[in-house]
Amino acid sequence: MTDIVHTFAGNPLDRGDALRRDPDWLAAAARDPDSCYLPMWRLNVLLEDGDAYRDNDTHRLGWLSPARIQELDVRTPPVFLGLVGDRARFAQDVSAVEEPLRDLDLPSRFRFEDSRAAGMVLPATDAGILAQSRSQLAWHERHQFCSVCGTRSAPARGGHVRVCPNCGAQHFPRTDPVAIMVISDGDRCLLGQAAGRLARIGMYSALAGFIDQGESIEEAVRREVREEAGVEVGDVRYHSSQPWPFPSSLMIGCHGDALTTDIRIDPVEMADVRWFPRDEARLALAGEHATLKVPGPMAIAHHLIRAWVDES
Amino acid sequence: MTDIVHTFAGNPLDRGDALRRDPDWLAAAARDPDSCYLPMWRLNVLLEDGDAYRDNDTHRLGWLSPARIQELDVRTPPVFLGLVGDRARFAQDVSAVEEPLRDLDLPSRFRFEDSRAAGMVLPATDAGILAQSRSQLAWHERHQFCSVCGTRSAPARGGHVRVCPNCGAQHFPRTDPVAIMVISDGDRCLLGQAAGRLARIGMYSALAGFIDQGESIEEAVRREVREEAGVEVGDVRYHSSQPWPFPSSLMIGCHGDALTTDIRIDPVEMADVRWFPRDEARLALAGEHATLKVPGPMAIAHHLIRAWVDES
Repeated sequence: MTDIVHTFAGNPLDRGDALRRDPDWLAAAARDPDSCYLPMWRLNVLLEDGDAYRDNDTHRLGWLSPARIQELDVRTPPVFLGLVGDRARFAQDVSAVEEPLRDLDLPSRFRFEDSRAAGMVLPATDAGILAQSRSQLAWHERHQFCSVCGTRSAPARGGHVRVCPNCGAQHFPRTDPVAIMVISDGDRCLLGQAAGRLARIGMYSALAGFIDQGESIEEAVRREVREEAGVEVGDVRYHSSQPWPFPSSLMIGCHGDALTTDIRIDPVEMADVRWFPRDEARLALAGEHATLKVPGPMAIAHHLIRAWVDES
Repeated sequence: MTDIVHTFAGNPLDRGDALRRDPDWLAAAARDPDSCYLPMWRLNVLLEDGDAYRDNDTHRLGWLSPARIQELDVRTPPVFLGLVGDRARFAQDVSAVEEPLRDLDLPSRFRFEDSRAAGMVLPATDAGILAQSRSQLAWHERHQFCSVCGTRSAPARGGHVRVCPNCGAQHFPRTDPVAIMVISDGDRCLLGQAAGRLARIGMYSALAGFIDQGESIEEAVRREVREEAGVEVGDVRYHSSQPWPFPSSLMIGCHGDALTTDIRIDPVEMADVRWFPRDEARLALAGEHATLKVPGPMAIAHHLIRAWVDES
């Protein structure tokens, strides 16, 4: 097993599990001029052009002071992300503001960027903070109401729980485990083209699917490959995991051995599934295959294919 | 890595991912006299005493026919679990009925049992079906209302999604990934006593905690051990996974190497955390330690401790 640090992992913050239970500390930290706020507008993140002389990075997260955030009519409380040393970091949803860049009157080196695109250009630590921020704000956006009784709920503990004022139910952020797997039969591996985005761009990737309730990781790997490709899987080996904040998946990457080889695709979910020889997969990873395209190194699928290609 | 089949894994049903998208097929299957229903009453499961001559098991799931279920005023649609061959299996919440055993007039070999106790006495395949049933019914119970807009939602696809009639939002069952880990420092391992149940019964177990949003499995292992015990962890190795339907956790079991050894416990979450020598852990697994109690083989913690004890 490789303890590889994927894009969106590597968040350096101390999540402050004990401090966030203290409302007085949280309120003081939210006002502290040394605290920093990361604004997100409709799930796009504020980026600042990097200072290439100082930090070698082309982009970084656009942290603002509490005073700058107070200039905006944000209407939602900040979400406490954690600490760098003793300085608190918050994510702030500014979606209620129509034109936050104009209202903040920020220099032109600031802009709001799609979070997936930002993940590709940010340093690893910033991408990790972005993953946490985006998942948490997306969860609040979709969980304004108590699922038990339908009453509007309110965030507590710096946004790490929502509490219903009517029935008292506590609701915690959700993280959806996904099994993603490269299945091999000797010198060839099984890659698929899901209906939708992958089919439109002509890319093949590892098969994947949400882990069901009452199912182990290994069972989910076998079920998904059976459903999507009609192939039976024997031994399953864990490789590595990646948080994927669209909106809040935990990608659990595995390798597995095929027991059968005939492919029978699920015509609803999949546009195509095929066996690819190792040499072709190697060329595709390098971007040198004439027709086969596979995901880039931002995606765990790339590293699962690479680990299999390199094991020979 | 061992592909161990833990209690609550090993569900033999074909979950029928394609068929459950067909409302006509589902409606026919729900009435089909060959279909079987598993009643659950307030999250307790119907058990039947096993036929020791036939199947060697002391207990089995209490499957009933559609006609028996129709005798009850259940008020909730069944949840489609999957197929055995071409016969459909459903879970049926009968919580609205005050005394279902009386109303069903079942023989005395049937009873409703706590699901955790049932997991200890059922054959592995039945415990797997119980895990799926309990998690799915518990999810419906706590998700009657749309979390986006607060309107009462309705189940679809045999209970695998709930749809909001007001805003159209789709809500899927949640599965909460939990990192659970045995951390070692040479010939001793780190076990803890969480405040609450474990402290009351004087048991030590593997440390564990929910994986946060924007976090890999390996990051969660390190964070939880830091928070609960003040110990820093280096290398992390995946071992196995277990569905834990209370209400819908996915336990992701790991081993890890300690980088530091001084313990500083989280006094809110933990009653105690200690290093235990390998010999003491071995005795405790066998139930032969004078004072140290550890979880039994139903729990993944038992197998994580055993794998570490046996690696020497």
